[in-house]
Amino acid sequence: VSKQSAAPPKGTRDFLPVFVRQREHVVGVIRSVYESYGFQPLETPALERLEVLSGKYGEEGDQLLFKVLLRGQPLVQGIEAARAHLQEPGAVITGRSGQVAPKADVLLSDLGLRYDLTVPLARVYAAHQAELGPIFKRYQIQPVWRADTPGKGRFREFYQCDLDVCGSDSLLVEAEVASAAVECMGRLGFEEFSLRVNHRGLLRAVMNQAGIEASKEVDAITALDKLDKVGAEGVEQELTERQVPEAARAQLLGLLKDGATLDRVSAFLQGHAAGAAALADLRSLFELLEGTKAASRLKFDFSLARGLSYYTGCIFELTSKDLAGSLGGGGRYDGLIGMFLGKDVPACGFALGLERLLLVMQERNLFPADLGSLEILLAGAPGESVRRVLLLSQLLREHGHHVSMIPKPEKPGRLRKSAAELPAAFAIWLEGGTLHLWDRKSDATQRNLDEQGLLAALAEHHSGIHRTGPP
Amino acid sequence: VSKQSAAPPKGTRDFLPVFVRQREHVVGVIRSVYESYGFQPLETPALERLEVLSGKYGEEGDQLLFKVLLRGQPLVQGIEAARAHLQEPGAVITGRSGQVAPKADVLLSDLGLRYDLTVPLARVYAAHQAELGPIFKRYQIQPVWRADTPGKGRFREFYQCDLDVCGSDSLLVEAEVASAAVECMGRLGFEEFSLRVNHRGLLRAVMNQAGIEASKEVDAITALDKLDKVGAEGVEQELTERQVPEAARAQLLGLLKDGATLDRVSAFLQGHAAGAAALADLRSLFELLEGTKAASRLKFDFSLARGLSYYTGCIFELTSKDLAGSLGGGGRYDGLIGMFLGKDVPACGFALGLERLLLVMQERNLFPADLGSLEILLAGAPGESVRRVLLLSQLLREHGHHVSMIPKPEKPGRLRKSAAELPAAFAIWLEGGTLHLWDRKSDATQRNLDEQGLLAALAEHHSGIHRTGPP
Repeated sequence: VSKQSAAPPKGTRDFLPVFVRQREHVVGVIRSVYESYGFQPLETPALERLEVLSGKYGEEGDQLLFKVLLRGQPLVQGIEAARAHLQEPGAVITGRSGQVAPKADVLLSDLGLRYDLTVPLARVYAAHQAELGPIFKRYQIQPVWRADTPGKGRFREFYQCDLDVCGSDSLLVEAEVASAAVECMGRLGFEEFSLRVNHRGLLRAVMNQAGIEASKEVDAITALDKLDKVGAEGVEQELTERQVPEAARAQLLGLLKDGATLDRVSAFLQGHAAGAAALADLRSLFELLEGTKAASRLKFDFSLARGLSYYTGCIFELTSKDLAGSLGGGGRYDGLIGMFLGKDVPACGFALGLERLLLVMQERNLFPADLGSLEILLAGAPGESVRRVLLLSQLLREHGHHVSMIPKPEKPGRLRKSAAELPAAFAIWLEGGTLHLWDRKSDATQRNLDEQGLLAALAEHHSGIHRTGPP
Repeated sequence: VSKQSAAPPKGTRDFLPVFVRQREHVVGVIRSVYESYGFQPLETPALERLEVLSGKYGEEGDQLLFKVLLRGQPLVQGIEAARAHLQEPGAVITGRSGQVAPKADVLLSDLGLRYDLTVPLARVYAAHQAELGPIFKRYQIQPVWRADTPGKGRFREFYQCDLDVCGSDSLLVEAEVASAAVECMGRLGFEEFSLRVNHRGLLRAVMNQAGIEASKEVDAITALDKLDKVGAEGVEQELTERQVPEAARAQLLGLLKDGATLDRVSAFLQGHAAGAAALADLRSLFELLEGTKAASRLKFDFSLARGLSYYTGCIFELTSKDLAGSLGGGGRYDGLIGMFLGKDVPACGFALGLERLLLVMQERNLFPADLGSLEILLAGAPGESVRRVLLLSQLLREHGHHVSMIPKPEKPGRLRKSAAELPAAFAIWLEGGTLHLWDRKSDATQRNLDEQGLLAALAEHHSGIHRTGPP
């Protein structure tokens, strides 16, 4: 087998120890914040029945699902059915990325890999509603899979860190969700970041007030969403291309000119009932958060649209200075959680993007020093009792130390060199029947210690040193 | 959509909060033990290229792989190829479980779901050998997927908790791996358990000494492995069925009679060189572990075979009293980790079976009390300032408390009822402009507190109470 074939699949990654520890650090911080808000952990299977996933993420989403092949007799039948389907006129479509055979995949598959954490939440909520109580606050930190084109910061397997409140339409939920998101960022060491906020109802009301007909609403909001990237002129050009009438364009551009503050949008919406309700939501949210840590981070941004699909109320997006794109987002979506129940369930949530957070934290070196490096590397010098070294390792662990033992006799100089390379904070060895402790930081060695002396010396060192590794 | 369709796929499970916390507790204990032995965490993608997985787990394993369907143009071609394959004579096989089309699945798939954690370790070791150093001690706790028939305690998605040392042939590695396994069990609260130990070289030598020809060796060891379940008579019957000659059978049964102790096996192997080497390994291991916590748990068991596939030296199995089957197992396997390098790499490891551990721990109630139950449920009585309640929740969190706020005004009696049901340790409410603290345990309420009084009262309560939730 050639060396090349040891690579993981395209768009996926192996995480060596340093990177696992970085991820665990970030997940640990996020989880501790989510827990402090009383959210409860949920985990769902990586596999979902294909019918649960299909049609939930739009046409593009259906194509990006990783589908699992049928097995046994159903596979034999599926191949026949797929072949028959391919022979129908127009069954094979040739597009930019080559030929595809829509629907053939569904004939060959019964399961798909989890694509997000919201559809599984809706499914679990339907299956266990009684157990979960009237208000269910859950967080879920698990990988999802999408057969997307991999690129910088874009992977086919990546983690989502979701928190959602199901069953309440109170704005206190928005306030709590926004606070938790801001607190995560602060605890992770981010200093310059904002939580942009807007309201789906506000966007729709403005489009309506500007005279944009309902059929063009989505087009206009999509254009507006690009303000950050293309500026007001770019938005105007896109509105023109999408055939938004000139009068409506002028109204919208007038609002954007000099910045669409909450007051300006409010003046623009004078007399619009749905618009007034959305404005009241936003003003209440700002008032609720006054004096909290989230207040200074919350910025009204009229151009924020967060895609368009399922949000119904307030929407949020976390952005950091000098970083294109978002570090997380969320909002209220009252029509989704009830999809398997056949009724609406109010819900509001937020998701942090773990991969982007890690990327930025790696660039800015926001990780604690010595994250998970080894504490003690231990060995016996040649000729010493191997069993005594083994018993010493047990004694050290009983006193809470993390110890890796070299599984062969080792000369002290070599041991110290290995400890420096790993790195380990200390090297300990048995030589001449006594114990010796080397401190990497000071390059000093304490010699001829007995067990009690060694434990005391380590305790003294540790009064100043942060012991590492997960708790 | 009907209620029934909210179920997860066959053989998989949704984990509601209580069960997530139980799993996290067990994984946390295992991880902390593995870390204390200096093992480093590794994580690999859920998906592997199919060629990495194929042929590594035997013919049955190939059939139990979850395979991911091709996408785009390759799918169109794959369907044609699979159809052509099905038309070849004998391509479809009818067996007990219906028709299958061997090889058709490989024509339709490029990726498979992770089947174990050992093949990914071998792949990562080949890709990163230089970085990983001469001796790589890693642990990996991730789910694997097998399209097995689900049953009690048998799932299609389940966690493995592996630790392995790659790059050393020292028996100190076996000693360390055995110690770590025993320590996990002790720390999880198990009291009656054994770590059974045997040696693949010993088994082969005994078969050889008994006059069983090489071609019958696997058959004979497979029969012997069932001693636990079927007794000596059952083993004899199976040996007969598998056409092991009578003289050899008699020798083997003679050894089993009255128990095959290390001394009896040693006497039986008199003059057998490979047997003597295996015996020396086992005796050295017992000597090394003398005086350690593992010593009292380690039991030589000549009938232990641990399947047959890839072990080359010492083999281990964790068993608990009154529980059929094992809670974990492992051993030395020097021929596997180098599979992608084209050379042998000595390795020894152990895997704990998370699902079985959890099952037993649930039956025996081995979890800490109040695992992850909520600390504080908070609300304002009707008419009180919602914002003040929100600010109070922030203050409490700043002091390290876990607080869930009810997102609407709530009467104190109802609040206490909800706190009792959840359960939460405390209910706190704002009423008449002051704060009130109810302790679920004592059913006592401290009334009319200010913020500082509340924090002091909580601190006093907490001097005796274990705060829950992950750290």
